[in-house]
Amino acid sequence: MSFCLKCGHATEKAIPAGDSHYREVCPNCGFIHYENPKIICGALALWKDKVLLCRRAIEPRYGLWTLPAGFMELQETMEQGAARETWEEAEGKVAIDQLYCSYNIPRIGQVYMLFKGQLEEGAFGAGEESLECALFDEADIPWDSLAFPSIYRTLKHYYHDRKTYDFAKDQVPFHLETISGDDTVIE
Amino acid sequence: MSFCLKCGHATEKAIPAGDSHYREVCPNCGFIHYENPKIICGALALWKDKVLLCRRAIEPRYGLWTLPAGFMELQETMEQGAARETWEEAEGKVAIDQLYCSYNIPRIGQVYMLFKGQLEEGAFGAGEESLECALFDEADIPWDSLAFPSIYRTLKHYYHDRKTYDFAKDQVPFHLETISGDDTVIE
Ligand SMILES: [Zn+2]
Ligand SMILES: [Zn+2]
Repeated sequence: MSFCLKCGHATEKAIPAGDSHYREVCPNCGFIHYENPKIICGALALWKDKVLLCRRAIEPRYGLWTLPAGFMELQETMEQGAARETWEEAEGKVAIDQLYCSYNIPRIGQVYMLFKGQLEEGAFGAGEESLECALFDEADIPWDSLAFPSIYRTLKHYYHDRKTYDFAKDQVPFHLETISGDDTVIE
Repeated sequence: MSFCLKCGHATEKAIPAGDSHYREVCPNCGFIHYENPKIICGALALWKDKVLLCRRAIEPRYGLWTLPAGFMELQETMEQGAARETWEEAEGKVAIDQLYCSYNIPRIGQVYMLFKGQLEEGAFGAGEESLECALFDEADIPWDSLAFPSIYRTLKHYYHDRKTYDFAKDQVPFHLETISGDDTVIE
């Protein structure tokens, strides 16, 4: 059971005229409630080839490692969202270079937009949603303790691309992929 | 005045614990209503160097020309959204090549994701939301009658990039920009 945001009346599932999808529609005031995918913005924040990771202090995936990332807010750009999350979760300032990895996750209605950037002065702390944050070399990445497949894939891409392309000449590819199936499985 | 989706009680504006933004919060059941940016997916659908445009049969911008594009739905990928919109608005089947232009429009809480693709067999019609659709050569693009700045910019990028890069070798750049100010102004 669901209620109308505009008038509080109980809504009904219906396909509005000219539409192709079921929506929650209000039979009292006619308001149509659209539900759309959400954008998650985040940063691969680098400092001298080290990657900034955060250990989650919240569910889901409490205790596992992630890139700083979270839901994009109204009135910000994706780049601002990625920088804000880096500040909130890791108390680091990131200068965004470029969009690096994007993931469709249709099963849960999410799109990840992960930006490559430089962690200013290599400085960071740990925000309220993090147990701890740290800069990792490739050899130390906790591959078995990463929170999400999007994070695993982004780190794999980064270490592959760094050996394959000339990052100094900005020859960094952009990756767009779809993550399907059970998101608890790191593929 | 706004009401709770979950229980129908009137909501109140408040900053939830651990949050940094005001949300509509329900004092009865505690449900927090997040509002986030929406993704608009669309296609630059090409057929022999011609671009498929649609003349809008709906507001806003009734009568003006646009690329097929619309709100991304749950349970689809961005590429599927772009192809679905091309079918719905122009009755064309597009084979997506790559993400080509992305625009933050923070003033209205939208992110455009426009994909370059090939219009299969050059076939199209006109969907319910289009007065007409047509394939345009560069010389015939209705620059003064385009519906949105995102469309204007994408077409400008395309004609510039086509002369600058080797599209046959997939050397197509990706553009990420922010559109600010009044979106009725084509910048
Ligand atoms: Zn209502
Ligand atoms: Zn409630």
